[in-house]
Amino acid sequence: MTTRIAVIGATGYTALELLKILARHSEAEVVIATSRQEDNVSLQDVHPSLTNSFDLPLTHLDVDMIISEADFVFSCLPHAASASTVRGLMSGGVKVVDFSADYRLDDVAVYEKWYGVEHPDRERLGSVPYGLPELYRDEIRDANLVANPGCYPTSAILALTPLLQGKLISSGDIIVNSVSGVSGAGRNTNSAFQYCAANENVKAYGVGTHRHAPEISQYCTVAAGENCEVLFTPHLVPMHRGIFTTCYVQPNEGVSASDAMSALRDAYCEEQFIRVVNHPVETKNVANTNFCDLAVFENGDKLVVLSALDNLIKGAAGAAVQNFNLMCGYEEASALS
Amino acid sequence: MTTRIAVIGATGYTALELLKILARHSEAEVVIATSRQEDNVSLQDVHPSLTNSFDLPLTHLDVDMIISEADFVFSCLPHAASASTVRGLMSGGVKVVDFSADYRLDDVAVYEKWYGVEHPDRERLGSVPYGLPELYRDEIRDANLVANPGCYPTSAILALTPLLQGKLISSGDIIVNSVSGVSGAGRNTNSAFQYCAANENVKAYGVGTHRHAPEISQYCTVAAGENCEVLFTPHLVPMHRGIFTTCYVQPNEGVSASDAMSALRDAYCEEQFIRVVNHPVETKNVANTNFCDLAVFENGDKLVVLSALDNLIKGAAGAAVQNFNLMCGYEEASALS
Amino acid sequence: MTTRIAVIGATGYTALELLKILARHSEAEVVIATSRQEDNVSLQDVHPSLTNSFDLPLTHLDVDMIISEADFVFSCLPHAASASTVRGLMSGGVKVVDFSADYRLDDVAVYEKWYGVEHPDRERLGSVPYGLPELYRDEIRDANLVANPGCYPTSAILALTPLLQGKLISSGDIIVNSVSGVSGAGRNTNSAFQYCAANENVKAYGVGTHRHAPEISQYCTVAAGENCEVLFTPHLVPMHRGIFTTCYVQPNEGVSASDAMSALRDAYCEEQFIRVVNHPVETKNVANTNFCDLAVFENGDKLVVLSALDNLIKGAAGAAVQNFNLMCGYEEASALS
Amino acid sequence: MTTRIAVIGATGYTALELLKILARHSEAEVVIATSRQEDNVSLQDVHPSLTNSFDLPLTHLDVDMIISEADFVFSCLPHAASASTVRGLMSGGVKVVDFSADYRLDDVAVYEKWYGVEHPDRERLGSVPYGLPELYRDEIRDANLVANPGCYPTSAILALTPLLQGKLISSGDIIVNSVSGVSGAGRNTNSAFQYCAANENVKAYGVGTHRHAPEISQYCTVAAGENCEVLFTPHLVPMHRGIFTTCYVQPNEGVSASDAMSALRDAYCEEQFIRVVNHPVETKNVANTNFCDLAVFENGDKLVVLSALDNLIKGAAGAAVQNFNLMCGYEEASALS
Repeated sequence: MTTRIAVIGATGYTALELLKILARHSEAEVVIATSRQEDNVSLQDVHPSLTNSFDLPLTHLDVDMIISEADFVFSCLPHAASASTVRGLMSGGVKVVDFSADYRLDDVAVYEKWYGVEHPDRERLGSVPYGLPELYRDEIRDANLVANPGCYPTSAILALTPLLQGKLISSGDIIVNSVSGVSGAGRNTNSAFQYCAANENVKAYGVGTHRHAPEISQYCTVAAGENCEVLFTPHLVPMHRGIFTTCYVQPNEGVSASDAMSALRDAYCEEQFIRVVNHPVETKNVANTNFCDLAVFENGDKLVVLSALDNLIKGAAGAAVQNFNLMCGYEEASALS
Repeated sequence: MTTRIAVIGATGYTALELLKILARHSEAEVVIATSRQEDNVSLQDVHPSLTNSFDLPLTHLDVDMIISEADFVFSCLPHAASASTVRGLMSGGVKVVDFSADYRLDDVAVYEKWYGVEHPDRERLGSVPYGLPELYRDEIRDANLVANPGCYPTSAILALTPLLQGKLISSGDIIVNSVSGVSGAGRNTNSAFQYCAANENVKAYGVGTHRHAPEISQYCTVAAGENCEVLFTPHLVPMHRGIFTTCYVQPNEGVSASDAMSALRDAYCEEQFIRVVNHPVETKNVANTNFCDLAVFENGDKLVVLSALDNLIKGAAGAAVQNFNLMCGYEEASALS
Repeated sequence: MTTRIAVIGATGYTALELLKILARHSEAEVVIATSRQEDNVSLQDVHPSLTNSFDLPLTHLDVDMIISEADFVFSCLPHAASASTVRGLMSGGVKVVDFSADYRLDDVAVYEKWYGVEHPDRERLGSVPYGLPELYRDEIRDANLVANPGCYPTSAILALTPLLQGKLISSGDIIVNSVSGVSGAGRNTNSAFQYCAANENVKAYGVGTHRHAPEISQYCTVAAGENCEVLFTPHLVPMHRGIFTTCYVQPNEGVSASDAMSALRDAYCEEQFIRVVNHPVETKNVANTNFCDLAVFENGDKLVVLSALDNLIKGAAGAAVQNFNLMCGYEEASALS
Repeated sequence: MTTRIAVIGATGYTALELLKILARHSEAEVVIATSRQEDNVSLQDVHPSLTNSFDLPLTHLDVDMIISEADFVFSCLPHAASASTVRGLMSGGVKVVDFSADYRLDDVAVYEKWYGVEHPDRERLGSVPYGLPELYRDEIRDANLVANPGCYPTSAILALTPLLQGKLISSGDIIVNSVSGVSGAGRNTNSAFQYCAANENVKAYGVGTHRHAPEISQYCTVAAGENCEVLFTPHLVPMHRGIFTTCYVQPNEGVSASDAMSALRDAYCEEQFIRVVNHPVETKNVANTNFCDLAVFENGDKLVVLSALDNLIKGAAGAAVQNFNLMCGYEEASALS
């Protein structure tokens, strides 16, 4: 049975990837695409690559119309704006995957500290499943609202969770060093993301202040069963898509890289999209796919856990469609392989 | 003897290259750098790479102050704005190299048609030397004002002039197909020049409407001694700097590629910055240099003339310093090799 | 009904794209993948991105085994080697799409002049359909062997054919100027394709000598109904995938760009993969798709026809699967949208 | 007074950068350039960008000829091969800067463990100054042989030395996470460095096994005055040149990022090429320069020290010319600014 879909905030890079995946999904019918931009612009005006795939106008956001015409919403709005809208959608009975950070953090105080705004839907915080199917599949399947994870957190949490759960590594002193392609910044006209600024350039940014830090720490804490404050540093590198995450962790006594590899293999042996690999972990191998590749190495007295994914797919739109498939009862991998 | 220099419009990419070259010039002292941006910003705030090389505030444009404190001006203002300012500077007795297109075209009507504005300094048009030292060295040496050439025109005019002058090729049916790195667009926040839009992308732009077309045609007409309307198509490719120009021309009867190579070699044998090469013409070989590389091939009944230069150096700041050196009596290659 | 497939020469970039597409094809089962490389290497060793998608050893080419175990062959061998093998396969009754140039040219003399080898299967030349479904669909549907087109020729022939057929342009004086991403060179360890040689670089290559020139000319001649010698110049630009072709043509009297656009729209109005677009033609819009985008502009007294496609998909593996679908009676677009 | 120079192993990327710098050096005259490649090839055949700058044949290495015709040698040979040659050169009285790792490590056992070969000039180990002028200027000035530092070590050691010397950070638990542009691999035809492999790709490599680890540890140990084992992980990112190093260190009690910044400023206040910056540390700001940019941030209970340099200049050829200038009594910055 076909599901009627609304995409809210359809002009960004994540929405574009989402629409490309949905175009291949035999059960998904996109009926509404909204934008805050001017009227009389179609989806293919904004995303010329969708020409011949979608013939849909961009409309202004109208919650009532969505409730009456759609069954499922992908919300690609910015934080705070998203939760305000989601609140109304939920009361109308549509199911929602929210790409924003609004429902990822359980603690209102942490949210409001890091995002600097009052949360518009406080009571739902803490009861919305985190949309990592490999870790929270059952909760997602039963949910009407799912918080789609951040791209960096996905790469780190998938890498660290089995090691923390299995008590192979210390929950202290975890360093997550990530590099990302420029699409992670969204369709951003900031001069830092101009071609001539970003090409042939590497820089760290948001050192000590990036909002994905508390998200990673929260889910690592869940995995560890004890407080786990992860130190996170993101970098920008000159490529379009891809995240490469290098985690430095302290193994518990007697734990080798090979033990850690085994733990990852055991945890993900039934997972179609997580590959614990013997070949080098590289972003090229996962680009344009829903895969996340993982491996572990020894380095001095630390373990180094490597993780690579496509920030726009497994780090955003692909995970969202995985969640959609679960929430609607389709094959989890539909349109994703 | 040191020349005191003002750089007007010092925030762009061309100005940055100019300042890097001037930092190496033992006779050049930059005393003023202006910007239309807010106060209390220094040159190194805008161009962090200049830290330790320049310690200069960015000031608002003040023609009187420039006249009293500087001997020489590089004007990096947009067209029309530049001529308005240059007019005042000339009356104050400073020498000027103008990077804008304002003094490149001899015919006011052509200028006003292609640039869509009234020319603010009409009477000077036609008497300002075109700043290609290889072709107009004597005029430049004697001038107080020089029109620095466009980047695409430099690549095409250097390639075609000896062939037209020597009557080796027809003045009709010349096609100039160019590709440029993204810095050619300047420090442009247009979304087309975002990393994620320009990377892994090629497109033609301004087909039939690019303002460098009449500039190329005018100087080819001069070289041919008869009317020469060149067809010009620029493209954008994913790199920072470099122009590669492929000219399709009709050889006169009996003229081979080797004849054309000889003509180029003869024309440029004393030129330090023009290389008629046997190795492949590639932008990489001229990047970050003031060189222009040229070669000729046969293809069917046409000749294909290839030309490569760095749009920011030989196509802009390098040529400007060559002109500066000539106008001030320094070694023409000072700071350029 | 499932078709059992052998991929001969499975280690290159084209084969990788082919395998990615076939992994999504519900009726295609890849049963054999061959390589001239050492034994005991699997497909995913060579293409780690295929991990979890294929679990197949790479075997040495064995024509008899292929004949007994496969119904359909994609031959990714180099020219000459391919025709030698195809000859045997055909006699065994399997259907073949040949990626090499061996069956593209009708005239043995032309083939042997440009490829410098004796053709190993001369008698078939001239009777093998050229695998551009938009132009030769019926012939392809009935064929057991199809010559998959070259990437540059696809971009040029799709752009020019309707204009030549409709007598909108002269068959003389056609210039095809193309730029290609580096994957067009295949998995080539030549130092010219090293990252540090190809990045931030543009160059022309094979000027007057590229083997795609006679291929373009042959099919333009077919379209024009009279001899049509196209002048072709390819360039290398720093991106992974994509071809952008700029054709300079002479319109017949009274023919405007808009007339030419209409002719293209009429010719391709029923074609799912050819888009005659009002938005800018850019390689980014067709990357990772089977689309070819086309548009026409006026420039002086010429028309400029722009064409963009992904050299690995519409220029190779995508077209091959289109041909496979036609030859096997599947939906033409299966696995391609 | 002019110094006559021989460049041994002149075909690589580092040698190319070296030659470009030397071309601007008024006291340097390159008289010999050697290569293990075939005869009758000139420097400009291998490095076309040097056309018009050098007109020199590539000759086979002949130690006696170098001793008789040159005063100074830059050795760009691989490890082991370099020390074998340097040994002979030193006995002939020429001065040498060695780009290889042969004289960087003081301990023969460490060298032989990490490089897997017997050291061909063991007795000199431990007495050759490490060519970081900012740290070892006096020793360099007096030396006849200097070990030019590795690119990664330069970025890390400049960042960490003042903090270790000042006891602001612990000598334990130091993590050095670096990313490098592809030129760091040299002119390497390995398929991993092909454009299509390296573009749009990030990977870690040599995790736990990279030979720059003991080099960093040795000089950090010197700075700390106690054993300091640094954990080092390099990554490859898609750009030509540049290293960005992110050091995670444990501050001693009460030490803030601002204290660390002050310590760096104090240490380098007289250094022309080390910039402790308030603007973002980015490789773009140091590309094509001899600068190293540094800054410190707090992140959780750690300090994050950022360091950026051009691997080919400050990480190789620029440092070498700094050393050359010191060893020959020229201005230290000659040809470098």
